[in-house]
Amino acid sequence: MKRNPNMTLLQDGYLFPEITRRKNAFLSNNPEANIISLGIGDTTRALPTCIAEALADSANALADSSKYTGYGPEQGIGALRNKIAEVIYKHSVDANEVFVADGAKCDLGRLQMLFGSDVSIAVQDPTYPVYVEGSIIQGVSKIVRLPCNSDNHFFPDLDSAERTDLIYFCSPNNPTGAVASREQLQALVSFAKKNKSIILFDAAYASYIQDPDLPKSIYEIEGAKEVAIEIGSFSKLAGFTGVRLSWTIVPKALKFDDGTSVHADWNRLMTTLFNGASNIAQHGGLAVLEKNGWQAIQEMNAYYLENAAILHRALRELNIQVYGGHNAPYLWARFPGRKSWDIFQYLLEEFHIVATPGSGFGDNGEEFMRFSAFANRENILEATERLKLCCGAELL
Amino acid sequence: MKRNPNMTLLQDGYLFPEITRRKNAFLSNNPEANIISLGIGDTTRALPTCIAEALADSANALADSSKYTGYGPEQGIGALRNKIAEVIYKHSVDANEVFVADGAKCDLGRLQMLFGSDVSIAVQDPTYPVYVEGSIIQGVSKIVRLPCNSDNHFFPDLDSAERTDLIYFCSPNNPTGAVASREQLQALVSFAKKNKSIILFDAAYASYIQDPDLPKSIYEIEGAKEVAIEIGSFSKLAGFTGVRLSWTIVPKALKFDDGTSVHADWNRLMTTLFNGASNIAQHGGLAVLEKNGWQAIQEMNAYYLENAAILHRALRELNIQVYGGHNAPYLWARFPGRKSWDIFQYLLEEFHIVATPGSGFGDNGEEFMRFSAFANRENILEATERLKLCCGAELL
Repeated sequence: MKRNPNMTLLQDGYLFPEITRRKNAFLSNNPEANIISLGIGDTTRALPTCIAEALADSANALADSSKYTGYGPEQGIGALRNKIAEVIYKHSVDANEVFVADGAKCDLGRLQMLFGSDVSIAVQDPTYPVYVEGSIIQGVSKIVRLPCNSDNHFFPDLDSAERTDLIYFCSPNNPTGAVASREQLQALVSFAKKNKSIILFDAAYASYIQDPDLPKSIYEIEGAKEVAIEIGSFSKLAGFTGVRLSWTIVPKALKFDDGTSVHADWNRLMTTLFNGASNIAQHGGLAVLEKNGWQAIQEMNAYYLENAAILHRALRELNIQVYGGHNAPYLWARFPGRKSWDIFQYLLEEFHIVATPGSGFGDNGEEFMRFSAFANRENILEATERLKLCCGAELL
Repeated sequence: MKRNPNMTLLQDGYLFPEITRRKNAFLSNNPEANIISLGIGDTTRALPTCIAEALADSANALADSSKYTGYGPEQGIGALRNKIAEVIYKHSVDANEVFVADGAKCDLGRLQMLFGSDVSIAVQDPTYPVYVEGSIIQGVSKIVRLPCNSDNHFFPDLDSAERTDLIYFCSPNNPTGAVASREQLQALVSFAKKNKSIILFDAAYASYIQDPDLPKSIYEIEGAKEVAIEIGSFSKLAGFTGVRLSWTIVPKALKFDDGTSVHADWNRLMTTLFNGASNIAQHGGLAVLEKNGWQAIQEMNAYYLENAAILHRALRELNIQVYGGHNAPYLWARFPGRKSWDIFQYLLEEFHIVATPGSGFGDNGEEFMRFSAFANRENILEATERLKLCCGAELL
């Protein structure tokens, strides 16, 4: 049979596998190198004991006939949907608008399937590659890139932006670390409402927002429930990158042009092509949202934010222009006139540090590197020591 | 924005939610009814202790800084891919042809995304609804149904079958319980080879095959690696319906017409739109494939097969024609001249037994009911006692 033509349109190599390939190539020639990874945004802190115990208790319960459970609701265990609505959203969304899943990436793929191929999309540029690549796999041909750079404070110029059916928007942003203000999100919601667009709001890093004036959810903006789906995750909130647990909010107020319910279609798709997140992971999620768990993960989030602050200072001391890293776990460092894959290779070879080349996130990412704060403190400190060995000039 | 036209083509209500709805409607009028569910194929036996402990150990390890893991390979932990190749496939497939995932249903959705909308598909009729409904969501318009009934021993007549790009095939079959013989699968592989079709072989119930002459994998057939993808699951193998763990085999020998590798496209899609199965579930899967775990789940499989045998005898004593239930956890019972939703309602109201109406699986399922053996023994025995109260004539 013939190959899916959409697959032929993908560029070679998804960004992170390419980084791994280059890292491994370097390691095979330099097996003794102690590489510090500030590349992929992968959590490194052990889980709080109370959360790991909840996971383990749930696993052990499966050996008890009176407690064993098989398939749960595709939409997630009721208690967890309730708890997400209560703790994360302060009841501003309803529990049955919460759909629990095994990861934001998977839900993004399913959302792309929900809307189909005959749609136009807009993404911030630079952007998390999955929005674009998943859309290409789905057969979407019209992809509008909204430049986000230091000139516009990494928020797209909506006055000149073209209308699209879907708008992917990520805040705190991956990769730039920019956090949209209330006014910016109000403008985004108005723009979507005017254009009858749907916003896919990626809030995977919302827990890193400490400033009370910055919105953690698109639903803090009036009218957002009529235009926005929000994707949240336990990955960076609670170190569940390996455990796998996420959620998507599809408000009942969100309608297609013909007046039919997006919520109903999403429910139909999820009950057809998904079978629920792991029951063990869901019980872990419940423990995250209980008082003890919630307190413990605040400390974990603060730890990574302190990492970000340390990295920020170190890069600034080298006179490197840095964005992000406040209320966000990513730093976006600029190296004017340099190719970001060259900087990647330089950092790898000279300092044994892996960071993510900005151009992997889009044309507006050229000249930039993304540094992730999801590392252990000793590695962050060691990385800053290594960087101090250069005067910064080699990097600029 | 406009609704995805593919979604409008789905019929109302996925089969199992509809069953749940009817059951709950009955329960709200008859709150004291002790309903026995032989409907959805959901496991009910507690996990063997050694497997639950492996799950719990893996969860507890996440609280230990020296053992914590975040993202794993999207394709699955190497040790698990190796173990599946070794224990399930006796090395007839290579470990890097094994892709671990969170469920067969999810992988079916992703496979449909892999092949895209411009394909024709064939399904057995009756069939597991997800093959058809997932394809409709993806935009597939040409769906050929291959009748499977008692006349052809529930194996499609390939001599008269139309050519399609994809052929979904499930053995042991859901819902009929039919298990394809070696000769039948040889014919299927030859048919696919002649037509340059790809077989999506659903082996979710393979562990129920006890007869050594019946193939447990399509790859026991020579040449199958050039034409078939196989989907396997820990759900019915090891009671992991709630834990969520599955795998898909994409052989490297499988090529598109243009000579490009299906394996490479699948790897690209999975690294883009999937982030690995839960690390806890994967460690549970490893324990299933260790000696103790493997022995324990053989007993679990034998237990459900004994349930099937008991149900088979009870239905036969009522002079009901029954297919399946040998080497398979499903029984396919015929009620000539009756509508299967009527039989559903009759069994629910008169005996408080839930079974699955055959027409929910396709036109050739009319007159049939599917009985699942995934229940506790006491419920199976209680169900047979209740059925004995009728003389069978009411059902025929």
